[in-house]
Amino acid sequence: MAPRVFYISDGTAITAEVFGHAVLSQFPIEFEALTIPFVETLVKAEKVKLQINDCFITTGERPLVFHSIVNPDIRNVIYSSEGMDYDFLNTFVAPLEQHLGIQACPVLHRTHGKGNHSYEARIDAINFSMENDDGQTMKHMDKADIILLGVSRCGKTPSSLYLSMQFGIKAANYPFTEDDMDNLKLPDALKRNKNKLFGLTIDPNRLHEIRQSRMENSRYSSLRQCRLEVKEVEMMYKRERIPFVDTTNHSVEEIATKILDVTGLARHMF
Amino acid sequence: MAPRVFYISDGTAITAEVFGHAVLSQFPIEFEALTIPFVETLVKAEKVKLQINDCFITTGERPLVFHSIVNPDIRNVIYSSEGMDYDFLNTFVAPLEQHLGIQACPVLHRTHGKGNHSYEARIDAINFSMENDDGQTMKHMDKADIILLGVSRCGKTPSSLYLSMQFGIKAANYPFTEDDMDNLKLPDALKRNKNKLFGLTIDPNRLHEIRQSRMENSRYSSLRQCRLEVKEVEMMYKRERIPFVDTTNHSVEEIATKILDVTGLARHMF
Repeated sequence: MAPRVFYISDGTAITAEVFGHAVLSQFPIEFEALTIPFVETLVKAEKVKLQINDCFITTGERPLVFHSIVNPDIRNVIYSSEGMDYDFLNTFVAPLEQHLGIQACPVLHRTHGKGNHSYEARIDAINFSMENDDGQTMKHMDKADIILLGVSRCGKTPSSLYLSMQFGIKAANYPFTEDDMDNLKLPDALKRNKNKLFGLTIDPNRLHEIRQSRMENSRYSSLRQCRLEVKEVEMMYKRERIPFVDTTNHSVEEIATKILDVTGLARHMF
Repeated sequence: MAPRVFYISDGTAITAEVFGHAVLSQFPIEFEALTIPFVETLVKAEKVKLQINDCFITTGERPLVFHSIVNPDIRNVIYSSEGMDYDFLNTFVAPLEQHLGIQACPVLHRTHGKGNHSYEARIDAINFSMENDDGQTMKHMDKADIILLGVSRCGKTPSSLYLSMQFGIKAANYPFTEDDMDNLKLPDALKRNKNKLFGLTIDPNRLHEIRQSRMENSRYSSLRQCRLEVKEVEMMYKRERIPFVDTTNHSVEEIATKILDVTGLARHMF
């Protein structure tokens, strides 16, 4: 039976999930996880404790509990459960206090809150990426931080949105389509923003698969067309000296961080 | 001077950032952070070690180093630097190995990689949210996992995108506009998906501010209009028994996780 895991927090529990997931992904087994956010009161904490204890009684195994709870009274309720506690934040607070010579003020802790002064910039970036997706307008290219290029379905949209959502970067994207292939060149709005261009490419076989699932047996989805488009676009990247990455085996996180790594664009955090 | 921080990883370094940011946000001071992803070779690790040591020489203080590196040889290079190491993943691996009675296989570790079999579902969710943003079509409402409602600029779009990006949820959203206000009611496509509806609301003063920055001194952005729209929409939520949250002081993370908490929709992880 898959070991049971609880992610518990008085906030969104996103940090607990990300951290727990990173640690547990080092083990070659499956886990069954339950996330419980917003445990802000003793009453809620007692209910969670009962859930943890029930899980122990039902499975006969102590569930793993990854938690990040600020209030010590609430935290103690979770500690008093039958779970195996992994208090990943507090483990590091004491050594950091010593190194920095500063007391932690955990009441201020709100990792995924709105306290960040640049929060508006992030929302602006998300709206920018939405409004400048898929070449629907060229009007704002001068305001973009980065402009992703590529053929249809190579990963431009999710990558642009991730760049804006996670890092607050104004990412536009522009598609090259079937009609462009005879004479592939950069539109003027892109030419004058050449230093912002970043290309995406993809294995033609994978592209063929993706397009087939959207538009089966069309010219658009044919392997022949996929091969042609990828070849033409890659040749243009090289001709124009546009940096590019292959998205085939990479997640949006990997594509986005690779783009930042290559371009040197700053990673903001929210 | 702000203490210096390095986030280092052989992958995207997103986990190192999220974790370090969560720990450091408990301290009432500013930090100056640098993220270095994709440290996959000994040569790169030696370069990073030099950067850390330079930082120590320049500032006279040991920089904090949050790292998650799988390869022990590469990790040892970082360990041998003048930084203060916080190896947040490995700290928990040994106790987990003991509890689970299983050896960790850190070679497989790729938290933000594409290994996850449900990765395609995530991309589908992102595309769904893009294509069903702002009521641009009602055709696919039956396929949505959730449909966010609200007036213009109350946070529908960023919340929908976050739900799809972070949790793989097909989130559509639908706006109520000035023209709807005389006789506010749900379109048929929403009525027949009533159990998927979730309302957003916002403080009218804040809405006024946001709209002013987009369309100054218009009827759309007037405080009077903002008050009217928010009042009408909230009355409809109550009349139709649609659950809703106030987005005014909340981040997209908080809004999204609150929606999942209230609706009971499953949080997928990627």
